[in-house]
Formats: sequence, C-alpha cells, structure tokens
Amino acid sequence: MMTAEEYILSLRNMRPRQVYAFGEKIDNIVDHPLIRPSINCCAMTYKLAELPEYRALMVVKSSLTGKPINRFCHLHQSREDLINKVKMQRLCGRMTGSCFQRCVGMDALNAMYSTTFEMDAKYGTEYHKRFIEFVKEWQENDWTVDGAMTDPKGNRGLAPYAQKDPDLFLHITEYRKDGIVVRGAKMHQTGALNSHQILVMPTQTMREQDKDYAVAFSVPADDPSLIYIYGRQASDTRKLQGNKIDTGNINYGGQEAIIVFQDTFVPMKNVYMMGEIEFSGMLVERFAGYHRQSYGGCKVGNGDVLIGAAQTIAEYNGCAKASHIKDKIIEMIHLNESLFSCGIACSCEGAPTQAGNYLIDLLLANVCKQNVTRYPYEIARLAQDIAGGLMVTLPSAEDFDSDAVGQLCRKYIAGVDGVPAESRQRMLRLIEAMTIGSVAVGYLTESMHGAGSPQAQRIMIGRQTDMEAKKAAARRLCGIDEDQLVCTATQKS
Amino acid sequence: MMTAEEYILSLRNMRPRQVYAFGEKIDNIVDHPLIRPSINCCAMTYKLAELPEYRALMVVKSSLTGKPINRFCHLHQSREDLINKVKMQRLCGRMTGSCFQRCVGMDALNAMYSTTFEMDAKYGTEYHKRFIEFVKEWQENDWTVDGAMTDPKGNRGLAPYAQKDPDLFLHITEYRKDGIVVRGAKMHQTGALNSHQILVMPTQTMREQDKDYAVAFSVPADDPSLIYIYGRQASDTRKLQGNKIDTGNINYGGQEAIIVFQDTFVPMKNVYMMGEIEFSGMLVERFAGYHRQSYGGCKVGNGDVLIGAAQTIAEYNGCAKASHIKDKIIEMIHLNESLFSCGIACSCEGAPTQAGNYLIDLLLANVCKQNVTRYPYEIARLAQDIAGGLMVTLPSAEDFDSDAVGQLCRKYIAGVDGVPAESRQRMLRLIEAMTIGSVAVGYLTESMHGAGSPQAQRIMIGRQTDMEAKKAAARRLCGIDEDQLVCTATQKS
Amino acid sequence: MMTAEEYILSLRNMRPRQVYAFGEKIDNIVDHPLIRPSINCCAMTYKLAELPEYRALMVVKSSLTGKPINRFCHLHQSREDLINKVKMQRLCGRMTGSCFQRCVGMDALNAMYSTTFEMDAKYGTEYHKRFIEFVKEWQENDWTVDGAMTDPKGNRGLAPYAQKDPDLFLHITEYRKDGIVVRGAKMHQTGALNSHQILVMPTQTMREQDKDYAVAFSVPADDPSLIYIYGRQASDTRKLQGNKIDTGNINYGGQEAIIVFQDTFVPMKNVYMMGEIEFSGMLVERFAGYHRQSYGGCKVGNGDVLIGAAQTIAEYNGCAKASHIKDKIIEMIHLNESLFSCGIACSCEGAPTQAGNYLIDLLLANVCKQNVTRYPYEIARLAQDIAGGLMVTLPSAEDFDSDAVGQLCRKYIAGVDGVPAESRQRMLRLIEAMTIGSVAVGYLTESMHGAGSPQAQRIMIGRQTDMEAKKAAARRLCGIDEDQLVCTATQKS
Amino acid sequence: MMTAEEYILSLRNMRPRQVYAFGEKIDNIVDHPLIRPSINCCAMTYKLAELPEYRALMVVKSSLTGKPINRFCHLHQSREDLINKVKMQRLCGRMTGSCFQRCVGMDALNAMYSTTFEMDAKYGTEYHKRFIEFVKEWQENDWTVDGAMTDPKGNRGLAPYAQKDPDLFLHITEYRKDGIVVRGAKMHQTGALNSHQILVMPTQTMREQDKDYAVAFSVPADDPSLIYIYGRQASDTRKLQGNKIDTGNINYGGQEAIIVFQDTFVPMKNVYMMGEIEFSGMLVERFAGYHRQSYGGCKVGNGDVLIGAAQTIAEYNGCAKASHIKDKIIEMIHLNESLFSCGIACSCEGAPTQAGNYLIDLLLANVCKQNVTRYPYEIARLAQDIAGGLMVTLPSAEDFDSDAVGQLCRKYIAGVDGVPAESRQRMLRLIEAMTIGSVAVGYLTESMHGAGSPQAQRIMIGRQTDMEAKKAAARRLCGIDEDQLVCTATQKS
Repeated sequence: MMTAEEYILSLRNMRPRQVYAFGEKIDNIVDHPLIRPSINCCAMTYKLAELPEYRALMVVKSSLTGKPINRFCHLHQSREDLINKVKMQRLCGRMTGSCFQRCVGMDALNAMYSTTFEMDAKYGTEYHKRFIEFVKEWQENDWTVDGAMTDPKGNRGLAPYAQKDPDLFLHITEYRKDGIVVRGAKMHQTGALNSHQILVMPTQTMREQDKDYAVAFSVPADDPSLIYIYGRQASDTRKLQGNKIDTGNINYGGQEAIIVFQDTFVPMKNVYMMGEIEFSGMLVERFAGYHRQSYGGCKVGNGDVLIGAAQTIAEYNGCAKASHIKDKIIEMIHLNESLFSCGIACSCEGAPTQAGNYLIDLLLANVCKQNVTRYPYEIARLAQDIAGGLMVTLPSAEDFDSDAVGQLCRKYIAGVDGVPAESRQRMLRLIEAMTIGSVAVGYLTESMHGAGSPQAQRIMIGRQTDMEAKKAAARRLCGIDEDQLVCTATQKS
Repeated sequence: MMTAEEYILSLRNMRPRQVYAFGEKIDNIVDHPLIRPSINCCAMTYKLAELPEYRALMVVKSSLTGKPINRFCHLHQSREDLINKVKMQRLCGRMTGSCFQRCVGMDALNAMYSTTFEMDAKYGTEYHKRFIEFVKEWQENDWTVDGAMTDPKGNRGLAPYAQKDPDLFLHITEYRKDGIVVRGAKMHQTGALNSHQILVMPTQTMREQDKDYAVAFSVPADDPSLIYIYGRQASDTRKLQGNKIDTGNINYGGQEAIIVFQDTFVPMKNVYMMGEIEFSGMLVERFAGYHRQSYGGCKVGNGDVLIGAAQTIAEYNGCAKASHIKDKIIEMIHLNESLFSCGIACSCEGAPTQAGNYLIDLLLANVCKQNVTRYPYEIARLAQDIAGGLMVTLPSAEDFDSDAVGQLCRKYIAGVDGVPAESRQRMLRLIEAMTIGSVAVGYLTESMHGAGSPQAQRIMIGRQTDMEAKKAAARRLCGIDEDQLVCTATQKS
Repeated sequence: MMTAEEYILSLRNMRPRQVYAFGEKIDNIVDHPLIRPSINCCAMTYKLAELPEYRALMVVKSSLTGKPINRFCHLHQSREDLINKVKMQRLCGRMTGSCFQRCVGMDALNAMYSTTFEMDAKYGTEYHKRFIEFVKEWQENDWTVDGAMTDPKGNRGLAPYAQKDPDLFLHITEYRKDGIVVRGAKMHQTGALNSHQILVMPTQTMREQDKDYAVAFSVPADDPSLIYIYGRQASDTRKLQGNKIDTGNINYGGQEAIIVFQDTFVPMKNVYMMGEIEFSGMLVERFAGYHRQSYGGCKVGNGDVLIGAAQTIAEYNGCAKASHIKDKIIEMIHLNESLFSCGIACSCEGAPTQAGNYLIDLLLANVCKQNVTRYPYEIARLAQDIAGGLMVTLPSAEDFDSDAVGQLCRKYIAGVDGVPAESRQRMLRLIEAMTIGSVAVGYLTESMHGAGSPQAQRIMIGRQTDMEAKKAAARRLCGIDEDQLVCTATQKS
Repeated sequence: MMTAEEYILSLRNMRPRQVYAFGEKIDNIVDHPLIRPSINCCAMTYKLAELPEYRALMVVKSSLTGKPINRFCHLHQSREDLINKVKMQRLCGRMTGSCFQRCVGMDALNAMYSTTFEMDAKYGTEYHKRFIEFVKEWQENDWTVDGAMTDPKGNRGLAPYAQKDPDLFLHITEYRKDGIVVRGAKMHQTGALNSHQILVMPTQTMREQDKDYAVAFSVPADDPSLIYIYGRQASDTRKLQGNKIDTGNINYGGQEAIIVFQDTFVPMKNVYMMGEIEFSGMLVERFAGYHRQSYGGCKVGNGDVLIGAAQTIAEYNGCAKASHIKDKIIEMIHLNESLFSCGIACSCEGAPTQAGNYLIDLLLANVCKQNVTRYPYEIARLAQDIAGGLMVTLPSAEDFDSDAVGQLCRKYIAGVDGVPAESRQRMLRLIEAMTIGSVAVGYLTESMHGAGSPQAQRIMIGRQTDMEAKKAAARRLCGIDEDQLVCTATQKS
C-alpha cells in the first residue's frame, strides 16, 4: 500500500502525457494549481488508510491474496463490506468536501469481476481469469483506476453502428492476434489524470450490429495514444489566483476530463469483453448500481460539510438561535441522513454474485441515486438561505488584501464579536463554492448526472419492483381475489 | 404459539369488558362488524407464523427460553433481528393493508427490557427481574400486548403535577405493600381491545414533582377496572352495512381506543417503574425510537397495496401505458422504497444495549419516521390522481345491488373489456378507503402522529447529529483551521 | 332574483324525480339529511346576494336585460367581472367550507355563449340566438343550472363511435323536426339535484365519425326521462345520525350524482350544438378554462376555513405559540394565497371573445388549476399535523352524549382552560371532515379531478406557452443568433 | 429620455470615481469587461423604450410633468400601471437573461413618495416637497437611480446604536444648517456603478435611541466621498478572457457593490428623512413590498430564457420528444408562470396610497417573493437535468479554439445533425451560467435574498392575513358559533 506522499510521487513518475486545458498543453500536472486540488482529494484516500483511527474502515484483507489492501481496491466479500464502502465514502466526502474520484474504479472492479465470471461460464472465455490477474496487480500496486464508461453518443436517437461518425462510440477498429486496436472517446472522466490505469467499459446495452462496440479492457493511464482534455468548472480560475480564500475549499476539488483514444493498442491479456453484446447490459447495470450506491456515501459526506458550514455561518452572523434557522439546519440534516439511509439500505440488502463478490440491491441503489438527484439541491438552497446574500456580493480576496480598501472590507464584513472578518469571508466562500461554484459541479450537477441521469434510475425502479405481488395484494384485500388468510369463524367454537 | 384461530378464541375467552362505541356497550367484541376487521389484522400476525413460506421471518428462538416464539414477542438479539422486524412489518402491512397493531407491544417490550436493566444497575431495584418473568409468560402465551404510552395531557403548557385535573396524566394514587393503585387514561390505544395485556409507560420525561407519574406496569386487558371507549374513523359505519364492498378493504382495519384506568390495582410483581423520574425520558426515547423504526416497515407494506391498487385501476381504466401514469407509479414506488430504506438503515446501524438486546440507531429511526409523516401523503395524492374522480362519486354498493338502478350502474361504470364493473368498483373503494376513508386513518394520520408527531422527531434529529464534527470539517476545508491531512509537497522529491 | 328561502321552495315545487341513493328511491330530496347540506350550500349563493355587505360582489346588471341579477347567472363583461367572479367564489367557499356547486353552470354559460356565437358566424346557424333566449330565462328565474360535461367514456383507448356500448358517450339517437332524442349519461354531476336546468355539453374534441356525439342542449332538471344516482362520499352516513357534531361541517356539504338520459327528447329551441364537431374542442377548452379559474376562488375559500380551524385547534390545544406551529400556519396561508394569486392573475389577463363576454387567460388558468391539484393536499397535511392524532381517535358524538361514558369523554378530552371539550371535539371533527371525510371529497379529490385531471392541464400548459420566443431569447443571449439590441460602442465617442 | 447610447455616454461623462475590484482601482468602468455586461443590462431599459414594439409598455406620461418618461422613473398611477411594471420587468428579464438593476430605484421612488407624504402630513415637514423636486429631475434626466437600503448590520442581535462600531449602520454624524454628514456603508448595491444617483433609505424599523440612523437622502453617484468595492461572482473572470463563449450569457450580467460613505455631505434639499424613527418601518415595508412584486416579473423573464435554453439543448441533444423531457419542460413553464401569476395578482389587487400613487397588495407581494425563493431553484435543477452532465465537464472555449485539440473537441461534442458543436457549446454554457455560474448569482441567490430573505416574507405573511375572519368561519361551520346564514326550514311552507 502506498502512502499519500508515495501516491503523489507515483503520479510524478508516470510517462509524459498529452494533457490540455485552456488551450494549452500542461506538462507538470501534479503541481498545476488547477489540477492539484483534485490530486489532493485522491491522495486523501491513501492518507486516511495511514491513520490508525480510520484504518479499520480503510484497510481490508484481499480476497485474492490475503494481503492488506486499501478498500478502494477491494472485491466486496459481504454485506458488511458493502456497508463499510458507503461509510468510507462518507468519510472521504467529509474530509475533502469534494469528489475524491477513486470510487469509480472500485465500482468498475466489482462489476467487471462478476460479469466476466458469468461470461466465461457461458462461453468458456478467459476474461475472468485475465481480469483476476489485473486485479492482483491493481491491489498490489494500490492503484487508482479510472472506470471509463460514458461515450459521446452523438445523436441519441441512433445506435452506435448507425452514427454518421463511427467514433462517437468507442469501438474496436482492428482485431489482431495479440490484441485489439480501439478508437473513440470517454466523456466526463472523473479523476482521469489522477489514475494509474483506465478500465474501459461499454456505455450501454449493445445489439447485434454493435459488436465492435461491446468492448472492455484496461490500459495504463500514461499510454502514449491517449489525449486528455480537461473540463472546466464554475469559478475554476480562482484556483489560479495567488490568494486561495476565494476558492472556498482551499485544497481540494474535483476533476473531469475527456479521454480520447487515438487508435490505442490493447494486448489481449487486458481485454475483458470483445463482442459479447448480451453482457454489455449486465455490466452497465451492475456498474451503475454500485456507483448509485456510492452516491449514498460521498455526497452525504459533502453534505456534512455544507451543514457544518451553514451552522457555522449562522453562528458568525449571530442568528444561530433563531427558530427558523434551527429548523432549516434540522431539515438539512434530515435530508442528508435520508440519503445515507438509502446508501446503507441498498448495501444491507446486498447479495453474493455467482462470482462470489457482493452486489447491492439494485432497486434500492436506484432509489438511493434518485434521491441524490434531488436532496443536495434542496440542502444547497437551504444553505444559501442561511448564509445570506453576502455570499455572492463579497469583494474578492485581493480587495481584502489591498491597501486601498482592505481595511474597509474588514470593517464592514465584521460579524459577531470575536470572529475575524476573514473567518466569515472564508466560510461564505466555502458555501459559495459548494452551491454555486466549482464544488457545486460535484455536489450538485454530478449528483444529478453521475452514475446515470434521473430518468435512467426511474426506468430501473419501474423494472426492479415486484408489481405483481403488489397487485395481488390489492386484489385480495378488496375482494376481487379470494382471501384465504382471513379467519372467518364468527361464532364461538 | 397460537394459531390465528386460537388467538380469536383466546379473545372470546377473556373476561367481560366494559367497551363502548356509538354510546352503547358492546358485549361481543369479537363478532362486532366494527371491530372484527381489526381483530383480523392482529390475527394475521399469528396466521403468517403458521405458513411455511413466512415461518423463517415470523418465528424465532426466544433468548430467554430457547423455545420458538412469534417475532412479535421477541427481544432483538442482533442487527439481523432488527432488520427482520422491519421486513416482517412490511409483510404484515401488505397482507392486511392496515395497521395490524401488534408491533406496539413488541416495541414496548424491547424498550422496557433495556431500561429496567439500567434502572436496576443504578438503584439495585428488581424491575428487570420482574419484567423478565412477565416476558416469559408473554412469549409462552403468545400474547398480543398493548404498549400504552400517550396520556390526555390537558393543557400542554403545564407539567403533569400542575394540571388542574391531576388525572390528565396517569398516576399512582395509592402506594400499598402489595402493589399500587393508578388512575388516569391512555389515549389512541392501537389494538387495545385485541390485546391480552396492557403494558403501561409514562408519556414523557418527568421531573421531581411528577414522581407519581413516573410509573410503568402491566395489567391484564380484561382487568375489571378498565373502561374502553372506541375511537371512530372516517367511513367507519360502512362496516356495519350488509354489503362490504364499500369498505374497500373488506376484511381488515385498524383500531384505536381510549383506556380509562379507574383506580386500577397493580400487584408489585407487575410494576416496572415507580418514581424513577430520570429513567422516564430514556424509556420514552427508546420506545419512540423502536416505534419510529416500525413505521419504516408497516407503512411500506400499506404503500405496496396502494401502489398495486393504483396500477390495477390504471389497467382497468385502460390508461396504464400512458407515460404520465407510468411515471406516477414509479414515483410512488420510489417514495415507498425510500421509506423502506430508512427502516432498514436504522436497523442495520443498531447496537446492543447494556441489557443485551439491540437498539436501533436513534438518529436514523427519527429520520425514518419524519419521512413517514410526508411520503404516504404524496403516495396517496398520486393514487388519487391515477384513480380518477369516480373514486368519490361512485354510487353505493346498495345501488349496484338494486333492481332499480343496479343495471345502469354496471352499464355506465364499465371500463376496459373483460373487467367486470364490480372489479373496478372494488378497486376504487380500496383506494378511497386508503386515501380518504377508514384505512387512511392508519395510512395517513397515524403516519403523521403515531410514535410521535413530526416536531418530536425534528427535536431528536437536531439532538442526535454530531454537529461539532461537521463544523470542524467545514473550518478545516476553508482554512480557518489548519489542514493537517493535505499533502503539501509541490516539488518532485 | 330569489331569496335563499325561495330557492329552497323552488326545489320543492319541481316535478317528482327519480333519485336513488343507497339502493332506495328518495322522494323528498329537500329534507333528506344526506342531501340537504348540499342544498344549503347552493342556497348560500342566494343568501349572500340578499345581504347588503355582499351585494356589490354578488349582484350585477345583466348585459342582456339591464336588470340586476346574481353574478352566478352573469356573462362576464370585463376583467373586473372575471376578478370579482373569483372573489365571489372565495367568499362562498369560506361561507360554506364546501363545494357550493353553482359555478359549473356559470362557467358553462360563458363558454357556450362565445362558442355558439362563433358557430353561427361560421355556419349561419341559430345556436347563439337560441342560447340568448335561454340565458334570459335563466337570469330572470335566477336558476341554478348544472353544467354537464363528463361522459362515462368506457374504454379510454377508443373513440366515442368505436365503443362497444354506444351509450358510453351521450349521443343523439333520433333527429326529429321538432327536436332530438338523446341517450347516455353524465358522471360526477356536481349539484345535479339542486339545479333547475341541465346544460349538456360534449365531453371532448369529437372527430368525423363522432357527429352524433357533438351535441349540446338544455333540459329541465325535472324532465321525467332523467334518472339520478347519488354518489357516496367518505363518512356520508354521519349525516344520517341524530347528533350532527361528527359531520364536522354541520350544515353544508357537496353533491355529485350520475344523470342517466333515457331517450330524452330535447325541443330544437334548446339545442345549441348538433354535429359541429370542430367546435366541440373549443367548447370544452373554454368551459375547462373558466372552471379551472373557478378553483382559484372556491378552494381558497375552503382553505381559509381549514387554516382558521388549524389556528383555532392549536389555541385549544395550548400550543399556538410554538414556533413550528406558527410556521406551519404561515405555510398554509402562503400556499392558499398562492392559489388565489393564480385565480386573480388568469382573470386579470382575460380578454373579450368575439361574442363580447370575457375569457380568462387560458395558460394561467391551467397553471392555476395545476396548483390546485397540489396545494390543498399539502394544506390538509399541515392541518393534520397541527390538529394532532386525536382527530382520528376521538369517540363518537354518541359516546359524548351517553350516560355511561360521556363524562369520561369530556374529562379526558379537555384542553386549555376555558374551552369546553365540545368545542375541541367540534373543531377536530371539522378538520377531520376536510382532510379525511366528506368535505375532503370536494377539498381534495375534486381539486385533483374537477375541471380536468392534472395531465389535462399539463397538455394545455405545454400548448399555450410561447416557446419560440423563449428559444429565440436563449439563442440571442448565448450568441447563436446575433444580438441587435446590445450597445457595442466600447470607446468614448 | 435618453437612448441606450446616450445612457452609456452619460456614464462616461460622470466624475471620476473610486471603484475597486480584485484589489485594483478601475478607471474606465464603462469599458471594463467585468463591468460592461452589467451596463449593457441597464442600457437595455433605455433601448427597449426606443423600439416601437415596446414603447407602449416602456414609456408613460409623467404624473408630475405630463411629459413622456421611461416607466422606470414613473410613479404608479393605477393598477394597470402596477401590472405593466411587472410585464416590463419580465420583458427586460427575458431580453437580458440577467438582473437589469434599474428597478431598485423605481421601487425606492414609489415607496419614498408615499412615505414622505405621510411624514409631512403628520409633522408638517417638507420631505415630500423636496422629494418631488428630486423626482422631477430624475424623470427629466431619465436617470438610473440606485435604491440603497441594506446596511452591514454587524451583530444581528444588537440595535444600531448598540453596535461596537457605530458605522455598521449608516448614520448621521453631523447636523448642519445646510445639510447633514453621514457615514457608513450600503451592502449588495445592485447596479450601484451604473446609476446616476444613490437614494439612501434606512435598513429596518428604528427605535428611540436609533434616531441618527433614521435617515433618507439622495446623492449623486459620483460624489467624491463615495468608495465602491465591486462584489465578485461565480465564474466572473471568464468575462476577462478573450473568447466570451464560456460566459454563457455573452453580453449581459449583474452587478453588486459595497458603497462606503466616507463622511458624505448631503444638502438639506436632498434629505427626505431625518430622525422620524416611526416612519422607518413604513418605508422599509413599502420598498420591500414593491421590490418583492418586482421579482414576480424579472425572474420570470430570466426563467423564460432558461426554459428556452433547456428546450433548445434537448433538441440539440436529440431527445426533445422523450416524454420525461417534455414533462420537465412543462413543469418549468408551470413554475415560472406561477411566479408571474403572483406578480400580476399583487399588482391587480393594489390600491392608492394617501399620496396618490399606487401600492401593491402587501400580503400577495410577500407571497410572490416567497415563491421566488423556491421555484427558480427547482427550475434550475430541472434545466440541469435536461442539459446533461456535459454542462460542467465541457472543455474551455480556448480548447475549442486550439490547434492541438480544437478539432477533437468539435468531433466529440457533436449532437444531432445540422447543429454545429459550437451551438451546443454555447447553449450549455448559458445553462451553466444561469444555474451554477455568474448569472445564477442573480437568478438564484438574489432570488433568495434580494428584497429580503425568506423569513422576512413569512413574518409579513403571518401579519397581513385576516386570521380572525378565518377562525370565525371555522367556528360557525362546526357549530361553536351560531350559523345565522343557513336556511333552516325543513318543511314545505
């Protein structure tokens, strides 16, 4: 296992990559102020494993090698493991106040593990065997792995094979004896640059003519054929300014990038699906299921931060005891713990797959994510209510620092006695970042679309429920069907 | 363990009781059409234990005697037990479409068990020992027990001892060597008449001058000193009509009554608290906690029925495939499973008490109940949307039966081909009953106030959360507190 | 104009009708305790016109005859008229706490007036002329008229002509020189029995093969060919009990019935549409529009009552000053006034039709009604929250009256000093009636489905909005289209 | 009246001001890319008055001089005027997609006009006379005026006079024969830099010891004693980049600044309140009322843009016909028109003040604003749902422009045929700006706090409702009070 320091060093030691942001190539991504906060987030998943108080949660015994590994590299062996996954994510979410990125790989890991097992069982292929070898390396090296699923998709009304530009879904362009060549792109790649490996999966259920698109594989993140284009976020350039106060969350942040695969060669040992269209849906559904569970942890941890910030600014403003403020704080807690409950419940109701690792309850995981598309927005709205309008009219940190108006800024931003204006400034900037700035990208918009947009969950919820049992219950109770359970004796026997 | 038949027989065999409804004394409660549906509900908890497919869920091994007992008499021995409690309640809720009443005693059982243990530990009293004896009897006889907590309370601004009428809180009027004499009343007693025993608890935290009010004990439900006054429900008299179709839920229903204690004598062996004011709050909090968990099961089961009914009536109306109907059904499922998730989560996060039985996570149990005060109302609103207005303008069952207009009723109430008008009529009546009739008493209003009104949960949510940890996280992230976890190295080492 | 007394007398003087309820024929509908409350509601629309303080709102000058008439018989001549209509309905809703039924005819009146005008303009028919004669009689006699639109519809997937049973939509069975013969039924007929005339309209847009179904006409409500089947409501039989306290709203209530047209003959002078299929949609849309506006008045008046009841019970319970109670009351007011705002706004934005009477803004009227399908449910939920669970567990009025337990009931239902238990009992019964009893039929379910179910409004909202203007604004602002309004000078001129 | 060009020129011709942003003094504010978009917004209020199609709405006859003036300088003379004010604001909101700032002065104008009238009537002062002279100049010069109310407030638990630093509320430091000297600051000053004059009002109800703080006056915006500190907004520095696409709304934006009054001298002719503490509350209440009405216009116009953008991006993505998309769009329209309805209703229910200008209905204006604190957030959430996650992961405009990756960006961001990637990029950036960027400052956070935070409206709603009438209605209906309106005759007379 790596320490946080070693993790960052490992990123430095990777081969040079083609990374672009603001139209320019970035050579040193590790120390780039736009990117570093997201590296710090990912590093936190290593750091917490070093700390005795979190070790029990963060470190587990590998089911493959028996060695201690970071839980982010783990194949879940029990319901307890699924539950602890959610708790670990809440912890990381609270510690970073951001998206820490490393869960995507963990979720891809567990989905791929069970799906390849079932593919091999059906076809006698060797995907599962190959994948186990990859996982051993992964655990041994304590990698961060980017689980890459979402394709550009082009015209959403057309199948992959029917697109005008065949590359709008990633596909195999050449089948070779020793491997395959692929072309295309993966969008919204969370933590792409902070990963050691990219684990690619198909983006949706594929059909007969889409065989070339039903492909799963892994490549090193520093494969020379890859191009990364960094996604921009609200208020992102604040990270480039000297004074970090205006970033709100001063050390941490999320990261999304487009990864372009320019005829990437993948050796056969790293190919885990190659044309098995009927398993593409299973893989997507399981990955999405795990990832929808994840949101019941990480976003709750983010919510903890925002609730703490709202309570603190209310105290700084001198109105924490107003009954309406207390009530809004309670509502925020209530909503946040409702999300956590969903994360816990879908874990608690998990069950083993044929391969042996545990899968969450898919109905409840979709219910979990559906709530995540709603409650963080309301929590954020309440936080803005409590924070007050100053959150969006506050002068810049540079003004606070200036000789000309710095003193005026401090004079007029003063809150209750004993709290420096700077503390108020910092706390307001944190709330701004989480509700209308760069952190809101992760806390809000990603809560909406990450792991699938709301409608995707609704389709799954409709599909996963046992409607026939419900209908039968209704029919029996109103007398359309006979009730064989009621005790009809009306006389003393 | 009793069969459902034996349970009903056991009610017949109880001593005569003073029971009043509609201003009249009811002698045979078992066969009274107003009351029988509620007995059928309670009987279902016995019936399901008889059936092989539910036995694993319904029957457990007693922790006290090792014998098989109904889970409703069980001291929860694990998180699995807490989870199974919720699942059992969802099952019973789906099977009866009503409040089945027996959980109140189960929740009182578990709360009293751990509280008496801690009382004895502190005071060297014998409450726990006495209570264990009572529980053994309870389990042996497979009793239904009424957990009786809520007092009339009179002026809510005044403490018990300060009320004009001292009886507005139940209290000890005489301390005798062999026992105590009590006077007062318990309101909203769910399943009071269907119980074998009444287990009385104080209604709130008591203070010094309220010593006489800090009292817990059990009495047989057929103690001659008790008077029962039956509460009325919306549309209750439909149960008295010959044709049962208009009751919607034709065989099952809830029951609430006021129990008046007219100087009831309680032998010392059945007294479990007598003046220990500082434990009254603990007992209330734990009972409420267990009971708030319960709602994450039973009301979900009721919700299953209403969802099934809504889907069925949409099919009968010929519009089940309209996208807005499908979306509303999915929303109903989503809300219902969100409640279930909360029930599961507070169970899954439970922990053992000092006495050894398991207590749910109190924060999450309060979150669970708080959602129960909201979602069933929205589920009911959506069910009304899907059902159509006919639900409240349909002629009476007697009109459908009449020579004069019966044929016209059937002609004009016809829906899609192949579905008899009567099926449509029955299903609409079920939805009516659950959203605006007698079943709505349990599914809606009881969801609001049972186990404590919404504000009671909010106070607990505010109290149970770890706000300091949240505030510290916020302060660290925005730089008010130092961040000792961030990896600050910015140069290649 | 009639007094309320004269109105009731006029009902007594009608020819005998075939009215059925609970399977029995009702001869004296005026004094029947099930029906009388609904007559009292309708009578209120006459009573208020008698009272000096409401005369300005209730009485207007006829645009046809110049005589003073009840506003319920009025053709709206201005925006002020449209606004006053809403205010009159709020008044009536507050005075009765129920559906007062008479608005349906007023809304049909105004829709028919402008539609017949446009029919005549296109076809040279005489519908408008005929209708004016009818309206003059209506105003002269101060009639209550039932606007009858909703057909049974059978299989909703099939057109009228394609139904297995052709009568599932009301249709012309015989064309005669002197008139037409019609057969079918109208469902959910609000106030049918309390009306002097029935004004029938088609239920939806008709197509070519549905010509026989595109029919509008009026008939006296005591036409011997009509059969009325009374719809039942939650808790309706409480009205049949001696003690009226349990009805909550002791004197007033709603009424819905099925009217069956058994080959009814309609003389030509009372036929206002006969096969003009392309005007059926206009008529439906306008009637629905007016009626959707109406709900922004009457349900607000009902809401006033429920808010007043909630505030009063909080005072009786001794908790009116708790901050969470005050906040819930404010939320109820807020939601109620939001509905009123919608009622006012669609009126204020009204415009004259070709015929000269005023039509509301259709977009805003649909927005109004859509909110009515939501807010009363939330207002009712909050009222239940404030009322407490006693609302559904209170003993019957007969128990309060009984020698055996009446004294106990009063003792234990006592609230704050100085408020008799009976007042508390009455107020709780009112809240029960409005949220889970017979008044809830009107306040909730009718709010959902009256004047069209929610989805009907959504379709209209989507259709009535000017989306192209919105899209153009967006395109211009982000630079897809050129911005010709921005002032581009960047240098001092 | 000025043209938009002349308006911008008038800003150029003002005296040099002390304006700070990002710690630096800004000399040319008119051409500063950070500020210019907000000037363009304000200029739109002049531009629209030039255009024939909007002239009827934008230009009115002055009640003081009879000359044509911009409605933004108008004293409302009728309900029609109040309604047209709201419509004008919706228009400006749609045309700019931003806060156009000029309404604050209009609202201050109307509040000050009626309050000074009542002050003079009570005290024989000359405030109203003075103010009329000022208004004539205002109308004559077609000024934009900043209505300045909100003080820093310091510790919210303390009165103005009791603050440690007396300047935390703006106050008179010197009373001179020819005028007064004031010190303090006004926060969140919308459009401060784009105004010609500043009209200062007290921030809250003042009490006896706060006499020095009960002050109202006007000063030229280029008074040398003033210091402006520009507030920063999410993503504000995108305006400083060369390529404007990433700003989303490429030409328009909002503006907030702190104005510091450094011992500003105000000649007596421009003083409109000086110690009349009992009128401070009236002034605040009326200004807030007008401004709460305003939000029922401007934010609806913003909503129009966001709805148009959401519909357009759905079309670009190729999914505009999915039923869930259509339903979300309808919900957005519904919420937006609900806000508009509230804006119209409080105007329509307005009434003349003693001074003769019209005041909105205060209850409904507060209801309006309360909804504005909720619905834009939900509209924004739905817009994000429809937009898709790309909105927050899209590469920067510079990447699209770059040789290295520009072509890749365009290739993989392609949507449906015929829509350039750039159009998709622009529309996504607009939605980003409005929901999580600089425009969201105005559309969301300002909707929350502008014109008073939510709790301020709730207090007013509780205070303005006629609760006694509601309670009386409830008491009469349930029989606690006698019903003198019901017709009790039960026998044929």
